[in-house]
Amino acid sequence: MSVGPPRGSLSAVVAAEGYPDDLKLAFEQYLEGLVVKSPSEVDGLFSAMRYSLLAGGKRIRPVLAMATQRSLGREPSEILPFAAAVEMIHTYSLIHDDLPAMDDDDLRRGIPTLHKVEGEATAILAGDALYAEAIHHLLTEQHATPNALVAATVQLTAATGLGGMVGGQYLDVHGLAPDGAKGLLLLHGLKTGALIRASVECVLLLAESVPSSAGTALRTYAEQLGVLFQVVDDILDVSGTEEQIGKPPGSDLRHGRRTYVTEYGLDEAVEMANLLHKAAIDALEPLGSDAAELRVIADHVATRTV
Amino acid sequence: MSVGPPRGSLSAVVAAEGYPDDLKLAFEQYLEGLVVKSPSEVDGLFSAMRYSLLAGGKRIRPVLAMATQRSLGREPSEILPFAAAVEMIHTYSLIHDDLPAMDDDDLRRGIPTLHKVEGEATAILAGDALYAEAIHHLLTEQHATPNALVAATVQLTAATGLGGMVGGQYLDVHGLAPDGAKGLLLLHGLKTGALIRASVECVLLLAESVPSSAGTALRTYAEQLGVLFQVVDDILDVSGTEEQIGKPPGSDLRHGRRTYVTEYGLDEAVEMANLLHKAAIDALEPLGSDAAELRVIADHVATRTV
Repeated sequence: MSVGPPRGSLSAVVAAEGYPDDLKLAFEQYLEGLVVKSPSEVDGLFSAMRYSLLAGGKRIRPVLAMATQRSLGREPSEILPFAAAVEMIHTYSLIHDDLPAMDDDDLRRGIPTLHKVEGEATAILAGDALYAEAIHHLLTEQHATPNALVAATVQLTAATGLGGMVGGQYLDVHGLAPDGAKGLLLLHGLKTGALIRASVECVLLLAESVPSSAGTALRTYAEQLGVLFQVVDDILDVSGTEEQIGKPPGSDLRHGRRTYVTEYGLDEAVEMANLLHKAAIDALEPLGSDAAELRVIADHVATRTV
Repeated sequence: MSVGPPRGSLSAVVAAEGYPDDLKLAFEQYLEGLVVKSPSEVDGLFSAMRYSLLAGGKRIRPVLAMATQRSLGREPSEILPFAAAVEMIHTYSLIHDDLPAMDDDDLRRGIPTLHKVEGEATAILAGDALYAEAIHHLLTEQHATPNALVAATVQLTAATGLGGMVGGQYLDVHGLAPDGAKGLLLLHGLKTGALIRASVECVLLLAESVPSSAGTALRTYAEQLGVLFQVVDDILDVSGTEEQIGKPPGSDLRHGRRTYVTEYGLDEAVEMANLLHKAAIDALEPLGSDAAELRVIADHVATRTV
């Protein structure tokens, strides 16, 4: 994929409270302008990809990548191609996870899932194409040395392959995660944690010269944030409304899934979320004010209702 | 139009030696030994990937890559990681194409398709994981400069994305290819031609310093070979036996597909195959004896019955 409108510089003003909306807005504009070089005959498939890609959402992963970039004292807009690649991959995983053979969900982000609108064949292919185009976009549009591009793509494919996102979905859909907390951590560490961690890790790899103290702080933060994200997701599945979460609540329960709520109960899951939230914030301590937006993201993930 | 039994012969050019079995054997051994770093809990998904990956087949694309490497005066085994990546991608495309929502095929390479054995969810995820691991394997195992790795991966993802393999499958499954020869060329150029061309092109990119005359010769050869492959595939779909092609014949007709046979009739399709075969061989002329195996591959593709 390449991009139509030129990239602008983002405001360096850090939002003191609430989600980093300037980053999210810049990302949405970038995503909206994405085009893929392809024959006009396949425009229908591109439209299907865009239907899911532009369906909204909080854009946690791309905003996280951009905030990480800013925490390194760099311009967030420089990392937009990578951020788009991550969101394309995340979107492809949602499209495939929603398929009848998988979770069989009719709604996603408050609108009908892609296979309900375009049929299963197009949904499968839209997911397939999004992954290929994500890697292509990263390698053709992201400004970085070839060495850094290779390192980031290695990380991203590992995070989304057998030992990452896809492996996690396999454990989830077949209920194969081992018993106990360790099994849940493995499951979610693969299914959602790997891509969240990669959203930070790849920015470090693309930047190349990052002080090791900052790298350690950011990796620890990403690790805590990934688990926090899932715990809150599990809490919202039982406590959120359809309007809030964009699909009927209780989906996990209906699929007989083990979640942090089924494993620990709601109260303990909430307590766990609070501890993870604090750990994520604490990890950022060495970065001082450079990490202001990363703190806001952690706050948002911990307190989100959608 | 209706299609009767074969009336033409594909053996216009006598195969000099048969298929390059040494390359195929080396490739099979490499593929057999391929492992992916992942937790033991996802071993079942890895087994599913291997079920399809090791189901046999002529290994046209990897052998083509290895023969291209040898035609450049280089050791074919050096290109094995790339060759494996291409075969993993090809295998993923077969798994997804065979799904009930797509071609709904029960047999592939003479054995039950993956979704018949492991269910649709695992089949979808095995395809997804194969693509991610293919790119990961290429970038971590292929010996080449970072620049060359980036160039080859850009080429490979373009060949397998919206403007390549996946786009072609979209046109095919929805019958969206434009009328006439141009539409068929577009369809197959995307669906099968792009990956066959990439099997040659990426070897050139990974090698970096290839004389332009050799590059031109090899690209022309790959272009002709890609079309030839599909024309013969279409012929075999109506003239082959289930034992030969590993699935019930007439699958294209049952899916109402336009093929080179439905478009031109069997006799003309056979004539077309002979012309493409000759064009592929002719393109190799500047390479002399270095291209001996590439000629054998063209002979094989033209005369294959499986």
